[in-house]
Amino acid sequence: MWCDTMEDDKRLQALFYPKTVAVIGASGRRTKIGYEVLKNLKRFNGTLYAVNPHETAIMGVPTVGEVGDIPCDVDLAIIAIPAAYIPQVLEQCGKKGVGAVVILSAGFSESGNRDSEELLVEIASRYGMALIGPNTVGVANNAIDLNASFLVQSKRGSIAFLSQSGALGAAVMYKTVYEDIGFSKFVSLGNMADIGFPELLTYLASDDETKSIALYIEGVKDGKAFIRAASSCTRTKPIIALKSGSSTAGKRAASSHTGSMAGDDEIYDAAFRQAGIIRAKTIDELLDMAKVFELELPSGNNVAILTNAGGPGILAADACEHYGLNVVRMGADTTSRLQKVLPSYAAVGNPIDTIAQAGYNEYFAAIQILQEDPSVDAILAVIVVPTFTRIGYNTHAKALLDGWNHKTPLVTCFMSGDVTATSVDLMRTHGIPAYPSPEQAACALGALYNYATWYHEHNSNSQD
Amino acid sequence: MWCDTMEDDKRLQALFYPKTVAVIGASGRRTKIGYEVLKNLKRFNGTLYAVNPHETAIMGVPTVGEVGDIPCDVDLAIIAIPAAYIPQVLEQCGKKGVGAVVILSAGFSESGNRDSEELLVEIASRYGMALIGPNTVGVANNAIDLNASFLVQSKRGSIAFLSQSGALGAAVMYKTVYEDIGFSKFVSLGNMADIGFPELLTYLASDDETKSIALYIEGVKDGKAFIRAASSCTRTKPIIALKSGSSTAGKRAASSHTGSMAGDDEIYDAAFRQAGIIRAKTIDELLDMAKVFELELPSGNNVAILTNAGGPGILAADACEHYGLNVVRMGADTTSRLQKVLPSYAAVGNPIDTIAQAGYNEYFAAIQILQEDPSVDAILAVIVVPTFTRIGYNTHAKALLDGWNHKTPLVTCFMSGDVTATSVDLMRTHGIPAYPSPEQAACALGALYNYATWYHEHNSNSQD
Repeated sequence: MWCDTMEDDKRLQALFYPKTVAVIGASGRRTKIGYEVLKNLKRFNGTLYAVNPHETAIMGVPTVGEVGDIPCDVDLAIIAIPAAYIPQVLEQCGKKGVGAVVILSAGFSESGNRDSEELLVEIASRYGMALIGPNTVGVANNAIDLNASFLVQSKRGSIAFLSQSGALGAAVMYKTVYEDIGFSKFVSLGNMADIGFPELLTYLASDDETKSIALYIEGVKDGKAFIRAASSCTRTKPIIALKSGSSTAGKRAASSHTGSMAGDDEIYDAAFRQAGIIRAKTIDELLDMAKVFELELPSGNNVAILTNAGGPGILAADACEHYGLNVVRMGADTTSRLQKVLPSYAAVGNPIDTIAQAGYNEYFAAIQILQEDPSVDAILAVIVVPTFTRIGYNTHAKALLDGWNHKTPLVTCFMSGDVTATSVDLMRTHGIPAYPSPEQAACALGALYNYATWYHEHNSNSQD
Repeated sequence: MWCDTMEDDKRLQALFYPKTVAVIGASGRRTKIGYEVLKNLKRFNGTLYAVNPHETAIMGVPTVGEVGDIPCDVDLAIIAIPAAYIPQVLEQCGKKGVGAVVILSAGFSESGNRDSEELLVEIASRYGMALIGPNTVGVANNAIDLNASFLVQSKRGSIAFLSQSGALGAAVMYKTVYEDIGFSKFVSLGNMADIGFPELLTYLASDDETKSIALYIEGVKDGKAFIRAASSCTRTKPIIALKSGSSTAGKRAASSHTGSMAGDDEIYDAAFRQAGIIRAKTIDELLDMAKVFELELPSGNNVAILTNAGGPGILAADACEHYGLNVVRMGADTTSRLQKVLPSYAAVGNPIDTIAQAGYNEYFAAIQILQEDPSVDAILAVIVVPTFTRIGYNTHAKALLDGWNHKTPLVTCFMSGDVTATSVDLMRTHGIPAYPSPEQAACALGALYNYATWYHEHNSNSQD
């Protein structure tokens, strides 16, 4: 068991940190998958080879007829050729000593061809190669600009995203390009013939680039292995999972999509609880929660809401309580200190409503006062930029940034659309999560607290 | 009672469809509220006067010393002067025969000055003027480019938005400027000293520009009047409400914010049910649901999910069931017709997963087949643009548009971020709601079905 894990680790190292990558089925013709992948890999910070017996020097990349012709060791091979030719090519990869293969091509178990998929696994395992797929959109490791997929390049960040659906992976990559969400690694698992969730979770648990792991699951193959790997992983790193197939129609669709048995939703719920996995209900929740783990873990659930907008502050308070946080009543010392620095009409209970007239000095002072209050475990700032005052659009963001102690978890919400785009950027570059709505911010902060509870429980005693 | 309604109607007509508007406290100095409002009103499609005894011809707008000096009738006066001077100015408005006043200034009941607020109401009522506010960010009627607020101009559309919080109103206006959400009318209700939800709901029930009404509520003043007006309104038009103050901290904050008694959340829940109001849980839900009413009402809850993306299709199915829709199993006739037009690996149950290779012809044919199936009450299309195929980015949007019969409710979800911005625009300009996630699309379609049920129940029998 221990040896297996070591072996997996080495194989997955070849997958995520290759020195040389070969694209088998690379093509100079647009609309070919082998074109898209090679194009994306041109940014890769390593050696790249195209493999195609019919073309030469595709897009200026050195091109050979078969993988065996490559004059150096090959760590990773991306395969985009018709299903029928793949066994033969896999043998060549094995003989060449390739560490990991990603098979993009479809036409295996998802279309009923289970035997031919088993053959792939047999060959890969005979040579000790890790196999991702088949029927995947690819793999990415943003730390080394490795985009071995036919999707757009995602932003660099600290979330590892494992998706059982290629289309959902694609949707998330496109969606996040213009948002403040970045990824360390991305794997489209495809049919999971060989490498599945357990192996990847075990690997990612000790991956320095990854602070949280987001999963899209249709159905796991080996429930016990999944729970074992996940339980071990959540001791050091949070896992957030979106599991589809909770409805009758969804189950039916999952079964015809990846051939997964979606299984009983309650069973997944129980398994997730057992393994300390946080369950997301929607795609947005999955990403909102995953990105909050830039922050340190809070030691309790007492949150202070700092806002310049009455209504949004109330909605934030409602949402905080809904997600298990306590909008703590401020003590006399803190309220009197806040009163001294905030406008006279400000509400200094909690939410702390500074009213629209409060600018840099007020916010800079207020965040420090809240951080110094030992009854405050985390701060949620909700800002509607008052465009009709003298206050600049990024004033609140700057004050929060300058006043922040980098320890107290600080989650922000800027609600004025494009007017606050720069504020959001400012937050992101300094590791402070920013959300477009108070409900999303509260949901994320709730996840941070939930995981903190799990983490402290499982790291304070040494048993297990 | 009937007379009151008629009277309200006339007063609110002056508010929403003025021929002449006066800005009292207009100013040429930036950072003044009176500057922002006058600037916004310059686009107004009618006659505009600035009132300021100390300045002349502000921003090129004819300027007088007081409202009585305006040489024509004045329908609407916007007041942005210190609280102390307002009673005197209100008297002048009354004598001038102004129909409606919007008092932007704060410093009344929200800061404990209940008496001075009562005085405003006394004066307004003596002259038969409608009074909005005080302590409001203003009013807008996009049909005549009337932005009598100090907020950004919102998009034209068919949602009337009534917000008890000015800041939340501001946040929504900023947020929606770059989204496919447009408004017919916007009212920031402020302290609701005179005009509140009941009068506005009664007016909007017969407003031709408005197809749905979105409310942000902290606490209503007269519960019975609210339910009476809302119940009458929902017979012809849907109301969607976001009610804050469901939590202990939220209640506390609401009470200090607008002095509202947030009340017991269960009581609001029951009142909303009684009046046929759909309750939103978040700001996004409020807007997502409100904008779906561009569509005709479905006759049942059977939905067909048409998608080119397996995983997102399953999530859509889960969400549809969650929101009370039935992902109906397709009959043999429809499945065999779909099989003929879709790629061989397509799944023709429901969700109908066309796979990524399906383009214009497939989508054009599929939507028509679904529309012709009498067991399909509504269609949800979920698209992830396959950028790696020959298929153009807007192909699916065009095919859906060309194949749509304009009757069957069609809700769409384009999941590829900016890549699909043009598709989303295309949908919006043709009255087809588009959402960024399948969960949001399903939530909106659920609201459409819920209201359809209410509508049909209350319009098939003539009893009250």
